[in-house]
Amino acid sequence: MQQLNVELGERSYPILIGHGLLAQPSRVAPLVGTRDVAIVTNTVVGPLYLDALREAIDRSASRRVVEIVLPDGEVHKTLDSISRILDVLVTNRLGRDATVVALGGGVVGDMAGFAAACYQRGVDFVQVPTTLLAQVDSSVGGKTGVNHAGGKNLIGAFHQPRAVITDTATLATLPDRELRAGLAEVIKSALICDAEFFGWLEQNVAPLLQRDPEALSTAIRRSCEIKSTIVGRDEREQGDRALLNLGHTFAHAIETATGYSTWLHGEAVGAGLMMAATMSQRAGWLDATAVERIALILQAIGLPTAAREVAGATALDLMRIDKKVKAGRMRFVLLQGIGHAVVTGDYPEAALGATLAAHFA
Amino acid sequence: MQQLNVELGERSYPILIGHGLLAQPSRVAPLVGTRDVAIVTNTVVGPLYLDALREAIDRSASRRVVEIVLPDGEVHKTLDSISRILDVLVTNRLGRDATVVALGGGVVGDMAGFAAACYQRGVDFVQVPTTLLAQVDSSVGGKTGVNHAGGKNLIGAFHQPRAVITDTATLATLPDRELRAGLAEVIKSALICDAEFFGWLEQNVAPLLQRDPEALSTAIRRSCEIKSTIVGRDEREQGDRALLNLGHTFAHAIETATGYSTWLHGEAVGAGLMMAATMSQRAGWLDATAVERIALILQAIGLPTAAREVAGATALDLMRIDKKVKAGRMRFVLLQGIGHAVVTGDYPEAALGATLAAHFA
Repeated sequence: MQQLNVELGERSYPILIGHGLLAQPSRVAPLVGTRDVAIVTNTVVGPLYLDALREAIDRSASRRVVEIVLPDGEVHKTLDSISRILDVLVTNRLGRDATVVALGGGVVGDMAGFAAACYQRGVDFVQVPTTLLAQVDSSVGGKTGVNHAGGKNLIGAFHQPRAVITDTATLATLPDRELRAGLAEVIKSALICDAEFFGWLEQNVAPLLQRDPEALSTAIRRSCEIKSTIVGRDEREQGDRALLNLGHTFAHAIETATGYSTWLHGEAVGAGLMMAATMSQRAGWLDATAVERIALILQAIGLPTAAREVAGATALDLMRIDKKVKAGRMRFVLLQGIGHAVVTGDYPEAALGATLAAHFA
Repeated sequence: MQQLNVELGERSYPILIGHGLLAQPSRVAPLVGTRDVAIVTNTVVGPLYLDALREAIDRSASRRVVEIVLPDGEVHKTLDSISRILDVLVTNRLGRDATVVALGGGVVGDMAGFAAACYQRGVDFVQVPTTLLAQVDSSVGGKTGVNHAGGKNLIGAFHQPRAVITDTATLATLPDRELRAGLAEVIKSALICDAEFFGWLEQNVAPLLQRDPEALSTAIRRSCEIKSTIVGRDEREQGDRALLNLGHTFAHAIETATGYSTWLHGEAVGAGLMMAATMSQRAGWLDATAVERIALILQAIGLPTAAREVAGATALDLMRIDKKVKAGRMRFVLLQGIGHAVVTGDYPEAALGATLAAHFA
């Protein structure tokens, strides 16, 4: 087992990474120490891991464990689902000292975390991510929330977990498409601030896709280190944390335009990374070789590099409501090289236009 | 104009108290400094003060001010209303740098604050309380949220305002019943930690009910000082802040049992203070003279001291889901004297039973 720490003063917490962790009472029980526990999962992950996790948590007679099984999919990441979770917490009279445990991917984690943030103005929260995307990205950092018909993640809260328990054994049951989608966030982490890691990824596409445990463990650990460091510097996204949104302004527009139903988040991030690379090149900040390397790794992993079913004008419209708008000016995370991302509102409008033309309909 | 400060480090903010403040651009505009502003009010307060406040805020051509007018009443303090506010914020594409302004009483403030906490994971928030209850209590301290059919304020967030603008001129239009209800929270403040203030209140019931500006201003200022001091010590209610819930465990049960429709919050607090006094006496901590003084001032103000339409068993059941339950044991704020409240789970069960028997059906 490996352990990292997210350093946030009194809100600091550990990330445990290991094989078979969620079924180990000695690891899990100390991190879920309250009398009342609610495990939130979905209809896909629940049947696979809920019994084992419950068994690992429920070791004392005084423990009360409630289960909430939601339908699967980003399309259900709505305020209505939050209301449903809260109804169960209230109906079962969970106290202020309850812990909400998220067992599943990013959607489950975002919703369980937001419900934990709102219930009685905030109860404890533990992440047990079971998708690569959640393990490398969404389970770390305390961003929780739901989508709105008008945009992705427009409703939510910052609510840090007490712990993240990453069981790499769960990746064995992950559909291939979701594995690829998760790797998009790994590439993102490397592009933001670690050129060496990007080089390592280029060399390890095959083992990663073959689910080589050592390769996956390295990718998860390094992605979590990068994210932890950035979140530790800027918990509330006043500055540097926005770097983690590389590719996401485009990705959110794709997901919103397609109704959260046909694209996986990681797939949209893959396309978004390509778009950010193109925009950076058009702005004169990234050379053709770097853009080519980014295109090649995305293609090797099997991620999309464009969104032909979304009109550029639609995407532009949706990006304007995205959270990165400040004082009316859209801000983007762009690349000044592989491993060097910057947040900026200072780019040529033509670079954005060219990007929309190149990658959207 | 008087000014207090709530000291919460980087979340510190001023409370301005004065006559006619909300119509003064020089006071209001600097505290609402963002381009995008959403004013949340209700159908009762809106017609009285919305134009004046909007005029005071909307001093530059680049300003965008959106208005959201909700139905009046605690019965509308629901997640559905939050969803409605968020819909308007999204539809109008308010950016992350927007300010949500609450113009109204405690219900409007709680909802506008919770919507501000959730929109884009938190935007700025300014309180313009127009009821005595909101001015002396609910606008200060950052508690926001909504009710659930299973209990009061079970869903919410801590989200501090950037400023509280208390215009005492708005009390001129306050219905008499709401004035009395607001005085319940003033009495509560005195009971918690200021015996001298309680004595002053006993001497000033008549001027307060006659809306003497000086008496009201004194009551508001001292109540805000008490609340600010306690909140400054314990923002997230890990300890001392729970003192501010004196009478509220009973009050919430009354409000929930009666469907948030027939009792004003302050009226329930009035009865709740009497119940806390009785329970303290039964526990042997408060003498008969003190209980009598509390009963007399509540009666002089015209506040209820019992809840005969609610069964004691129902109240008990509802109190168990109240947020003050810790590790399964109900905690109460009780009095060890006038001006000396304590939070405790260590009381004789018989004291609670006797209180339920004395003040409920």
